[in-house]
Amino acid sequence: MDRYAMLKQRVYAANMKLTELGLVILTWGNVSEIDRENGVVAIKPRGIEYADLTPEDISLVDLDGHPLESGLLPSVDLDIHLELYRNFPGIGGIAHTHSTWATAWAQRSIDLPVCGTTHADHFYGDIPCVPYPSPEQTDEDYERFTGKLIVEEFHRRKIDPMQMRAALCSAHGPFTWGKDASEAVEFSYILEEVSKICKLSEQDGAVQRLPRHLLDKHYLRKYGDNAYFYQTK
Amino acid sequence: MDRYAMLKQRVYAANMKLTELGLVILTWGNVSEIDRENGVVAIKPRGIEYADLTPEDISLVDLDGHPLESGLLPSVDLDIHLELYRNFPGIGGIAHTHSTWATAWAQRSIDLPVCGTTHADHFYGDIPCVPYPSPEQTDEDYERFTGKLIVEEFHRRKIDPMQMRAALCSAHGPFTWGKDASEAVEFSYILEEVSKICKLSEQDGAVQRLPRHLLDKHYLRKYGDNAYFYQTK
Amino acid sequence: MDRYAMLKQRVYAANMKLTELGLVILTWGNVSEIDRENGVVAIKPRGIEYADLTPEDISLVDLDGHPLESGLLPSVDLDIHLELYRNFPGIGGIAHTHSTWATAWAQRSIDLPVCGTTHADHFYGDIPCVPYPSPEQTDEDYERFTGKLIVEEFHRRKIDPMQMRAALCSAHGPFTWGKDASEAVEFSYILEEVSKICKLSEQDGAVQRLPRHLLDKHYLRKYGDNAYFYQTK
Amino acid sequence: MDRYAMLKQRVYAANMKLTELGLVILTWGNVSEIDRENGVVAIKPRGIEYADLTPEDISLVDLDGHPLESGLLPSVDLDIHLELYRNFPGIGGIAHTHSTWATAWAQRSIDLPVCGTTHADHFYGDIPCVPYPSPEQTDEDYERFTGKLIVEEFHRRKIDPMQMRAALCSAHGPFTWGKDASEAVEFSYILEEVSKICKLSEQDGAVQRLPRHLLDKHYLRKYGDNAYFYQTK
Repeated sequence: MDRYAMLKQRVYAANMKLTELGLVILTWGNVSEIDRENGVVAIKPRGIEYADLTPEDISLVDLDGHPLESGLLPSVDLDIHLELYRNFPGIGGIAHTHSTWATAWAQRSIDLPVCGTTHADHFYGDIPCVPYPSPEQTDEDYERFTGKLIVEEFHRRKIDPMQMRAALCSAHGPFTWGKDASEAVEFSYILEEVSKICKLSEQDGAVQRLPRHLLDKHYLRKYGDNAYFYQTK
Repeated sequence: MDRYAMLKQRVYAANMKLTELGLVILTWGNVSEIDRENGVVAIKPRGIEYADLTPEDISLVDLDGHPLESGLLPSVDLDIHLELYRNFPGIGGIAHTHSTWATAWAQRSIDLPVCGTTHADHFYGDIPCVPYPSPEQTDEDYERFTGKLIVEEFHRRKIDPMQMRAALCSAHGPFTWGKDASEAVEFSYILEEVSKICKLSEQDGAVQRLPRHLLDKHYLRKYGDNAYFYQTK
Repeated sequence: MDRYAMLKQRVYAANMKLTELGLVILTWGNVSEIDRENGVVAIKPRGIEYADLTPEDISLVDLDGHPLESGLLPSVDLDIHLELYRNFPGIGGIAHTHSTWATAWAQRSIDLPVCGTTHADHFYGDIPCVPYPSPEQTDEDYERFTGKLIVEEFHRRKIDPMQMRAALCSAHGPFTWGKDASEAVEFSYILEEVSKICKLSEQDGAVQRLPRHLLDKHYLRKYGDNAYFYQTK
Repeated sequence: MDRYAMLKQRVYAANMKLTELGLVILTWGNVSEIDRENGVVAIKPRGIEYADLTPEDISLVDLDGHPLESGLLPSVDLDIHLELYRNFPGIGGIAHTHSTWATAWAQRSIDLPVCGTTHADHFYGDIPCVPYPSPEQTDEDYERFTGKLIVEEFHRRKIDPMQMRAALCSAHGPFTWGKDASEAVEFSYILEEVSKICKLSEQDGAVQRLPRHLLDKHYLRKYGDNAYFYQTK
């Protein structure tokens, strides 16, 4: 499995970055990345303190969750990651945290509304809050259904996961994704800050929504066909 | 008393950890640990700045509070700790802080409701807010009654202290416990973060409670008979 | 362009200061400074991470936005800066951030009211919240109209930009300015703190406004003709 | 004036401590200490950045505010300090900040209510909010009247400044005091934390007040005739 040493190193670094950015404490988060060509997913092992984590500890599994090494057990949230990888073919990395402000928003069980250009610079619309699994789904396969419900919500609302790189799991917390583990972590960071600004802009429990033309302008000048936000397209 | 040098060292380290985690400033907290076999409790001495504390300063007392050394006087909160050790036989360490968000919640004199899976991952239900001593109890023995009221509230509500490792003392602040001093501090850290998330998820002064099946799922996948959250059970 | 090496160095340092002060994360901000004598503006290049920025990367343009070097493209917000430099002849530096509390206030689309002497020590009245560009203006030239709207709001309200070194762009975030890039950054820092204090002093969504005589006293003892706040006038 | 080198050093150190504790940014604060025997007050010079401050910069004045050295001009708030030293004979040091949460409370123009034992451990009752000077008083001598109004409020309410080492100046910010400059700074630190906890414990804009017997118990076990909070009385 030396061939996956670089993959494990990237996933390790992305996990450590979560703690450096103050997005997780203790064991409260996990990051994974997929090697699409080989169908291999690298993910943080379950229940390990970040201070004790090494690149070698990173778990390798296939897309059905079968371990590829005799190492540590993968994150208990593995099946959530796998559902997303199977159904969102464009994504290459996933991050999950219990970061304070994004989790507070998830606990309100409502979408995070787009109410400023900071949000629009990164997410193309409201960040969907996804229902939690029912008692029956929880009994049957809690983690897998948590992932399925994200996918279903995105399909039902016709949201493109490449333009909305985050979901809030109701009563639980955020998942974010991107082209790799590092970008997934970056969107966790952005989501936390956007969640905070949105909360602080509430007045009488309501926010002012960003008008459509500014949402389009800000998102598309960064990510649209005629984007001009970066040095090169 | 060299035989208790390791105990004192652990209690010293746990006390210092409180300041490193930002849970106490000045002298606003104390941690203890009990050697059940010998009936010896080690606790932070009263009124000492953390910057000045050394392992040798840690006070040793028996379960009736009698000093075992001619050293510094134990924390003024000693009798609270002793009440908990006498009545909660499964616990091995206790931490007390005035951490910002948990104390703010205690000052509201209401339970901290379980309104997310972050809470459910660590506390099996609402964190009880315990009444403060009456004027008569305060006159008679304030600290001991503070401890007694925690114990009585847990008994009255039939709460297992091994599944609810925290209490909010109304108008005062939190106490947490665990298998040793280190774990007690960890639960102080978790309680602070959970208190903050809960407060930030309020809308019109109310929160959304976590449904029962998710409380069970999250708590029991970590601490139940069939737990699978950690590498090994 | 070696003649502008000092200018670029100052603009580089001012941009880096924004991150040190916690006012920007990722690429969320930009600072510029103008050499009025030569009509040259130095500004952060677009889409560059602060960690990767060097003094040489700073873009040089004339007051019409034409590049003076074959280097990196200037900030996408360049035209906002240029509008301000052209219309506020007394200013020498401009800073733009998405700092948390000031941005939260901008997202409320209301002026930041002067409700304390901390605010009055630095801004001579309410900090104006400026409307965002219309759909037509956004289509035609979003950034330039964002700048024009700031200028128009100041003219319409007869606000002297030398006594009000900040504007909140509705739904977007703050712009601040000063005699040079460094002072512009300092006003971003002050605005963030003043925004936070104001928000935290709200009660039922309202604040108590500072009476006129204290606004005059505090602002003028620092910036008035008979100022006595500093060692020398 | 070498005889006051130690005094200046203590005042310098106490001023620097304000920034280390995060209680002031830029020039937003000042600390003084009095040598009662010689009637000499040492105070931070006005308008000096903390990063540039040295012990030699500290200004020395007599109790009428006359400079004792040809050094830097004393803080513009000097007359507030002098009023307090003249009228509160037990105090030896004074600190003034614009710390975030205490200032937010001052901007609400209401007393900071005692609503927890953390508050009662340090302040014997509500922290009085003092009216700001009238337009006439502001014109005549703003800083001196700011001090006079604190003294008058304490006299009117029969508050002992040795049991209430803080005042909130309405619309302005907090002043705290103690036996020396260092203790004054410590009470600024405590006031900031207590202000924050109190704000965070609000529900529908109201807090639960601490009952009288707990205020007495907590304050007096630290500061009363039969205090037992510290190692020795």
